[in-house]
Amino acid sequence: MRIAIAQIDTVVGDIPGNTARVLERIAAARDADADLVLFPELALTGYPPEDLLARTHFVAENRAALDRVAAACTGIAAFVGFVDRHDGMLRNAAALCEGGSVTLVYHKRMLPNYGVFDEERYFEPGSDPVVCEVGGVAVAPTVCEDVWLPAVPAEAASAGARLIVNISASPFHAGKAPARERMLRDRARENGVWLAYCNLVGGQDELVFDGRSVVVSPAGEVVARAAAFAEELLVVDLPGLALPADPALPAVPATPPAVSAPAAPTAAAPSGEPGPAGLEEMYGALTLGLADYVRKNGFADVVVGLSGGIDSALVATIAADALGPEHVHGVTMPSRYSSAGSVEDSRELASALGIGFHELSIEPAFSAFLDTLAPVFAGHGPDVTEENLQARVRGTLLMALSNKFGWLVLATGNKSELSVGYSTLYGDMVGGFAPIKDVFKTVVYDLARWRNERPGGAVVPHAVIAKPPSAELRPDQLDEDSLPPYEVLDAILAAYVEDDLSREAIVARGHDRATVERVCELVDGAEYKRRQGPLGIRVTPKAFGKDRRMPVTNRYRG
Amino acid sequence: MRIAIAQIDTVVGDIPGNTARVLERIAAARDADADLVLFPELALTGYPPEDLLARTHFVAENRAALDRVAAACTGIAAFVGFVDRHDGMLRNAAALCEGGSVTLVYHKRMLPNYGVFDEERYFEPGSDPVVCEVGGVAVAPTVCEDVWLPAVPAEAASAGARLIVNISASPFHAGKAPARERMLRDRARENGVWLAYCNLVGGQDELVFDGRSVVVSPAGEVVARAAAFAEELLVVDLPGLALPADPALPAVPATPPAVSAPAAPTAAAPSGEPGPAGLEEMYGALTLGLADYVRKNGFADVVVGLSGGIDSALVATIAADALGPEHVHGVTMPSRYSSAGSVEDSRELASALGIGFHELSIEPAFSAFLDTLAPVFAGHGPDVTEENLQARVRGTLLMALSNKFGWLVLATGNKSELSVGYSTLYGDMVGGFAPIKDVFKTVVYDLARWRNERPGGAVVPHAVIAKPPSAELRPDQLDEDSLPPYEVLDAILAAYVEDDLSREAIVARGHDRATVERVCELVDGAEYKRRQGPLGIRVTPKAFGKDRRMPVTNRYRG
Repeated sequence: MRIAIAQIDTVVGDIPGNTARVLERIAAARDADADLVLFPELALTGYPPEDLLARTHFVAENRAALDRVAAACTGIAAFVGFVDRHDGMLRNAAALCEGGSVTLVYHKRMLPNYGVFDEERYFEPGSDPVVCEVGGVAVAPTVCEDVWLPAVPAEAASAGARLIVNISASPFHAGKAPARERMLRDRARENGVWLAYCNLVGGQDELVFDGRSVVVSPAGEVVARAAAFAEELLVVDLPGLALPADPALPAVPATPPAVSAPAAPTAAAPSGEPGPAGLEEMYGALTLGLADYVRKNGFADVVVGLSGGIDSALVATIAADALGPEHVHGVTMPSRYSSAGSVEDSRELASALGIGFHELSIEPAFSAFLDTLAPVFAGHGPDVTEENLQARVRGTLLMALSNKFGWLVLATGNKSELSVGYSTLYGDMVGGFAPIKDVFKTVVYDLARWRNERPGGAVVPHAVIAKPPSAELRPDQLDEDSLPPYEVLDAILAAYVEDDLSREAIVARGHDRATVERVCELVDGAEYKRRQGPLGIRVTPKAFGKDRRMPVTNRYRG
Repeated sequence: MRIAIAQIDTVVGDIPGNTARVLERIAAARDADADLVLFPELALTGYPPEDLLARTHFVAENRAALDRVAAACTGIAAFVGFVDRHDGMLRNAAALCEGGSVTLVYHKRMLPNYGVFDEERYFEPGSDPVVCEVGGVAVAPTVCEDVWLPAVPAEAASAGARLIVNISASPFHAGKAPARERMLRDRARENGVWLAYCNLVGGQDELVFDGRSVVVSPAGEVVARAAAFAEELLVVDLPGLALPADPALPAVPATPPAVSAPAAPTAAAPSGEPGPAGLEEMYGALTLGLADYVRKNGFADVVVGLSGGIDSALVATIAADALGPEHVHGVTMPSRYSSAGSVEDSRELASALGIGFHELSIEPAFSAFLDTLAPVFAGHGPDVTEENLQARVRGTLLMALSNKFGWLVLATGNKSELSVGYSTLYGDMVGGFAPIKDVFKTVVYDLARWRNERPGGAVVPHAVIAKPPSAELRPDQLDEDSLPPYEVLDAILAAYVEDDLSREAIVARGHDRATVERVCELVDGAEYKRRQGPLGIRVTPKAFGKDRRMPVTNRYRG
């Protein structure tokens, strides 16, 4: 059997566009003499469609699209993810299309309803395994979560399946890929079956789907692997499907995979590791997540306020890599408190990246605000109000550029400052998208250094990396005047925000109690700001967003 | 049997505070010679605790608090809502506390996971009905959703229950109360049992819980009812509990309820209707929702930008009623495009309400921005950019007042403009809370007129109600230049946003096709703005918030 895995980048809600892409890949797979082609979970609607599922006409249109897809399935079979209305309830489904029609529908049995997932809000689970014959092979379709625990694949194998197909929309976080691949290898080996895994690729709001579809042999060996963070049509021959597999035998020698990749001509060859890891992987997720958000929302260009600091430098760099430097506009907006280096470092960055560069002083508007407010503020000394004012003048200037030229504003805040609220709402938090909002400050530095070592050279000026972090909102201000050193802060934040540990447990890890109390208090107090911040790319197992649904009104301090 | 219903206002996360309130009501109920006292769903944690439930120490603290409550239950029994960790899974539970300890725990069986609810994210459902003896009476505890369908109460009655207790956290929307009470009367009559329903009261982020706890006789008659939108300890004698009830008999005559109301001295007497309806009910929800948000988040005062229009006038009025006029600060911020009436009408409103009043011109800052941007904007004519600039100068001024004086900024946007994005992000959308974000513009007028007819007189100036709506961001601008008349707009929005109808179906209701297309396009295009807007009070069955989870990246146009 020759199988094709169509790792495609869908757009939520774009049923006509997604359908066209599916039809195109069916034709390409047939041209490659594949017997069967796989598409990701909910390929026709995009994933996750969220409350679009509340619209009956939306579900009806996705069903009509499936019929168009099925009609094209002659000379090849396909498993296509779609939403099935069955007994009046919606199901997350995989349709087998062959001979010009839908011959079978499988309903996802395990519905994730944790983390970023809300599938029980929308779907009823399926109750039965399905094994069908495709090209003389007993095949069991499954959908995403179904393979994460042993039960569903084991039932499918018991029912005679020799090939388990999994169509998936498995979102990225750093370090997830090896665990996912290990799980897939376990499922294949446990059951002595071939496993063909088709994952979605692309960005959707805060999620990035990383692709890395694989084919695993009954011995648990990865025989073919699709690219990370790019579309691909992966074509693989599966030998020995009719023979009983024996997990104790050495790896079944696979025919070298025939790979054709419409979107990514050079595909990663299978190896011990599922493609990029560490900083390279994270950078890949950030560029794809940004590029897809911009493109799918109809923007061409972005604008970034360049402070001379590391955050805005990294965001501008990611944007230049994701969109091309001609689509990125940097703006430096100095004030009376800006260091001389801020403008010069920003200019040097813009020049190294080849992006646009503008300079707008915030002094006239800042002074006008101070004058206007002077009578009301009489008798009150300067405080954080005047610092926020500067940030809000900058935010207003960026939004004016956005309004006038149609540029999407990128917010440059990182996860450390977003956690503790070390940012100004309607100021530096302004933006349509916040690419690094899930990246801790320490990792921001790591990413900048990593990128500087790539081909193309050091784009982030040394001075930007070397200078101590500062908001430059009052004379000689440094982040470390207000916050613990970022190494300490990030460790506490990871424990509190990502691991949900108590203050006590964090202190027990060896952190200073007063520092822990203060950081946790800041995190709790900043919830209202985070709620009004832009979407950004999830790269950790727990981002601020659908992952972490904290009440704003919340007196818990444990 | 004498039963007490402790309709209390809890705070999410405030386990010590909620526990203290529970203990105080247990003492009061014992003083009133009650045999049994009921508390709302999850009374110890507040509802909904959301991802606080991911913290093991939070759950442990709530369990320890239950032990303190149980220890106080001598000479009286209590059903108390708490989170139970059972077999390693969390359960939404009701504990029976009596004789100084927890004698029984019931696990909620029906877990809502739709609309604003996410209970399957957190809880495992219970599987069995529970009937226990309290003061010689067979009592079945249930939790909220359990009584909304017939099955669980029917099982409880079959198992011998003579009294069904329901502890609840049922959020308000306009018009829900009669339906809920009808449902409760059905459940009592169907099963020939007494039904004692204890609902939560108070605001929590976007939700308002309206209270209106009731006791229903086996004949389906409401024999006692607690206040809407206020705390109360409702004490009621339930006669005839030992006798078999016969739903065919006329209403069991009830002893007139003995009512003591620590928070609301005069309780509504039972009648055909569950308290306030229509505009009065909505106004009650808005004042309670605002008062609780302000109080529970530690604010004392609020600031409102007064434009001279109806939205800000209504928000200021609600705020004055909710917090006292001395805690409300109005600010008029005229520009070159403001009508002479705007400042004068605002001043008149502030004077009628007795709130603070400030005037800050936006001209200096607006001019400074225009000058700063002039070189970059050279060759481009004025457009929406300059309109948004004015709104953002106002937003920045309000935030400066907030920063300097600790006042919470109230955003004044209504549901109509929020739907179509007829508002400026970081401009008039600025605020910590948006009281009328779920109120359509037509209803904003109705509420203002209704409030003007209340005791205390006409606070909203006639001119504010009479003038045609205008954003006053360019000369002679009127809302109706950009939008259909609000009667038409609101009808289309209700169909599209609240009822999830297709464009086709809305046209079929008799609306002009081009208008429908345009309005729906505006709604879809404003999703990113809404995501960055402040929380506000849900008063309809579908608010922008947890109710309507639309992707931002979304190409669906059906």
